[in-house]
Amino acid sequence: MALVIQKYGGTSVADAERIRHVATRIVDTVRDGDEVVAVVSAMGIRTDELLELAAEVSGRSHPRELDMLLTAGERVTMALVAMAIQDLGIAATSLTGSQAGILTNGRHGQAEIVEIRANRIREALNEGKVVIVAGFQGVDPDSRDVTTLGRGGSDATAVALAAALTADRCELYKDVDGVFTADPRLVEAAGKIDEINFEEMLELASAGAGVLMPRSVEFGRRFKIPIHVRSSFHDGEGTWVKEETMEQAVVRGIAHDESEAKVTVYQVPDTPGVAASLFEALAEAGVNVDMIVQNVSRDGSTDISFTVPGVSIDRATKESEAVAASVGAGGVTVDRDIARISVVGLGMKTESGVAARMFRLLSNEGINIEMISTSTIRISCVVRADRVGEAVRALHTGLGLDQATS
Amino acid sequence: MALVIQKYGGTSVADAERIRHVATRIVDTVRDGDEVVAVVSAMGIRTDELLELAAEVSGRSHPRELDMLLTAGERVTMALVAMAIQDLGIAATSLTGSQAGILTNGRHGQAEIVEIRANRIREALNEGKVVIVAGFQGVDPDSRDVTTLGRGGSDATAVALAAALTADRCELYKDVDGVFTADPRLVEAAGKIDEINFEEMLELASAGAGVLMPRSVEFGRRFKIPIHVRSSFHDGEGTWVKEETMEQAVVRGIAHDESEAKVTVYQVPDTPGVAASLFEALAEAGVNVDMIVQNVSRDGSTDISFTVPGVSIDRATKESEAVAASVGAGGVTVDRDIARISVVGLGMKTESGVAARMFRLLSNEGINIEMISTSTIRISCVVRADRVGEAVRALHTGLGLDQATS
Repeated sequence: MALVIQKYGGTSVADAERIRHVATRIVDTVRDGDEVVAVVSAMGIRTDELLELAAEVSGRSHPRELDMLLTAGERVTMALVAMAIQDLGIAATSLTGSQAGILTNGRHGQAEIVEIRANRIREALNEGKVVIVAGFQGVDPDSRDVTTLGRGGSDATAVALAAALTADRCELYKDVDGVFTADPRLVEAAGKIDEINFEEMLELASAGAGVLMPRSVEFGRRFKIPIHVRSSFHDGEGTWVKEETMEQAVVRGIAHDESEAKVTVYQVPDTPGVAASLFEALAEAGVNVDMIVQNVSRDGSTDISFTVPGVSIDRATKESEAVAASVGAGGVTVDRDIARISVVGLGMKTESGVAARMFRLLSNEGINIEMISTSTIRISCVVRADRVGEAVRALHTGLGLDQATS
Repeated sequence: MALVIQKYGGTSVADAERIRHVATRIVDTVRDGDEVVAVVSAMGIRTDELLELAAEVSGRSHPRELDMLLTAGERVTMALVAMAIQDLGIAATSLTGSQAGILTNGRHGQAEIVEIRANRIREALNEGKVVIVAGFQGVDPDSRDVTTLGRGGSDATAVALAAALTADRCELYKDVDGVFTADPRLVEAAGKIDEINFEEMLELASAGAGVLMPRSVEFGRRFKIPIHVRSSFHDGEGTWVKEETMEQAVVRGIAHDESEAKVTVYQVPDTPGVAASLFEALAEAGVNVDMIVQNVSRDGSTDISFTVPGVSIDRATKESEAVAASVGAGGVTVDRDIARISVVGLGMKTESGVAARMFRLLSNEGINIEMISTSTIRISCVVRADRVGEAVRALHTGLGLDQATS
C-alpha cells in the first residue's frame, strides 16, 4: 500500500461536475489499494471573486484579513470534494491548512511553510479515511493567524505534505499534460517531457515555465520527493520530476518570460562601490534582481543594466533614480518590451558549445541579443519582446527539440 | 468604558456598501468610548448559494463537511468587516468561531455552545482592537471539527459571548425595528415593544415570533444579559429584552405560527399506556411534540391530537401509524392547514380572565378553536390557517394592543 499525495488546481475543481470527476479519480486510486491525501485549490474564478469583493469594500491593503478572506475559497472546495468522495462509498474528511498542521511564517499573502505537524492527517489515514487538505493556506503558530502561501501555494502544500508524510509519490493534476519542451502556445512542435531532473525543472520554473513554481520543485529536490505533473482530464502519464533521469539531455527545454523589465543606469562613474550601493538599495527595497550586465568603462563611466520582475518595476526605478542621483550618474531608463529566453539542460555541465549554437541560431534569424546570463545548466538571453515567438521556435528546432510526431 | 457585543445578521452585511455601513456603526460605538466585539453572519444569500453548490455535488447528507462548507460564509464577512473598520482608522481583527474559543458539542448543523474560552478575544481587546467574530459557528473540542449552530446561531453566539465576557450590553441588529406586539405584516396596528421580560420573550419566541430564537433568549435569561434588539438601518431605540421591566403588561404580545401540523390518532382503545407508547415512540424519533389534546372517552375509545413542527410531519406520521397499528387504533390523519396563535404576558400570572376574553374575541369573529394549551404566562389556540389574520387582528384590538399612533 503506497501513500499518494494528489493535488487538484482551480480549473480541475471549477464546478460541481469536475468536483465529482476529481472524487472519482481519488476513489480509483484508493480502490487500487493506495492511501490518498488530496490537496485542493479554490474553485476556478472564486479567488478572483473574493478579491473583487475586497476591492469593493476597501481600496487599501489588509494582509491579515485578506488571507482570512481568501482561505474561504479552498474551504468550500475541500468540503465539496469530501462529500463527493463519501458519495462513492469511501470515507473522507477535509482539513484546513491549520487543522492539517501546516505551520508557516507570518508573511501574509506569501507565507513560507516552516513545519508540518501531520499528526491529525496521520490519525485520519489510520482510520482508513481519504484526507482532503486545503491548499495554499497555513497558520502562523506565533500569531495563530491564518496565512496564504501565494502563487503556486497549493503545489507547494502538496509537495511539502509528501515530504512530511514520506509519501511514495506526489501527483500534481493540471490542465496541461505535463511539462513541455517549450510553451505549446508558441511552439507547435513542442513535446511533453517524460522525465526531468529537479535541477533542470528548477531552472525552467525560474525561467518562466508556468506549469510549476520554483518553490515546489525546490521542496521536491530537498526532500527527494518524485513529482508527477499530469493532466486531470485523462489517465495518460505526464512528466516525472525526480532526482535521477534515465537519459541526460543536453537541452531539456526552453522557457521564456515576458513579464520582466530592463532597467539601465547610464553614465555611472566608474569608481568602486557604485554597483554595491545600487544593488544593496534594491535588495533593501525587496526587489529581486535577475540578470545584471555592466558594460566596459568608456570615458571613465559605464552603464549598468539589470532585469527585474514586472511587479517590482516601479520600486526598482525609484531606488535606481535615487542612487543615480547620489553617485552622479547620467540617469535611469526603463524598458518593458523585453523577453528573456532560457535554454536548460543538465548535459550542458559536460557538453560545451550550446551557448555558441544558441547565439548563432538567434543571429541567423536576425534577432539581436541584448543581455546574456548563464548558470551551469542554463543560458538566458534577453531579446525584443516582439521577437520572442520566432526566437523560441528557432531555438526549439535548431537545438533538436521538435517532436517527430507533431 | 463599557464592553458592547453587537451582532449583524445576513441582510445587514448583504453587500459591500452595507458592510461599510456596519463598520461605521461599530466605529461610532468605539469613538463613543466603548469596547466592541461584533458578531457577523454570512452575507445575505451566500449561505443559500453554498447549499445549492452542495446539492449540485451531492444529493446526500454530509453533516461534518456541510458545516465546513457553510462556515466559509461568515469567514468572508468577518474579513471584509475588519478591513472596512481598519479603513476608518480603528484597529480590528477577525476571529473564526474556533479562534474565538467557541466550544460546542458535536451535533453538526445544530450544535450547542458548551463553553467559551475567550482569552484570544480578551487579548485583542486589551491591544485596543475591535474584534469581529464569525457567528453561527464553533468547534467541537473532542473531534476538533468545525460545527454550526443552526437557525438563530449568530444571535446565540452574540448573547453567549456577552455572557462569557460579562459584557455591559448585547445589541442584536436586525432588519426590523425591534420586537412587535404582533407580526406587522398581519396587523397594521402592531407597535414596537420598548421593554420585554425574558420569560415573555421566551414564550413569544417559542410561539413563532421570528425576530429572536428561544435559545438566544434563554442564554440572556440564564446569564442576566440585557439584549437590545434594534434596527441596523437607523439609530432609534429598539426593544430591550431584560430581567425586570418597568411595567408589567397583562398581554405583551401575540405570536402566531403557521408551520405546524396537527396529527390525530383516532379511535384509540382507552386503555392505560397507549398515550405513553405513542409519545415515547415520537420522542425516540426526535419529534418535538408541541400541544397535545385527548378527548374524553366515548364507546371505550378516544382521539389523541397533537401538533408537531413542519419539518417533523413525515416522521411523526410514520411513527404514529406504527403505534396506531400496534394498539389497534382506527388510524391516523394529518392536517397541515392549521395555525397556532399565542397570547403572552407576565401579568397573566396574577390577572385571570385573559383566556376567557381570548376565546370570546375569537368566537365573536366566528373562528373555531380546535386546540388549547396554556402556560402561566401564555395561552395558545389552534385555528384554521385561513383565519389566522382575522384572529390575530381581533385579539390585538380586543386585548388593547393597538397603537394609537398607527
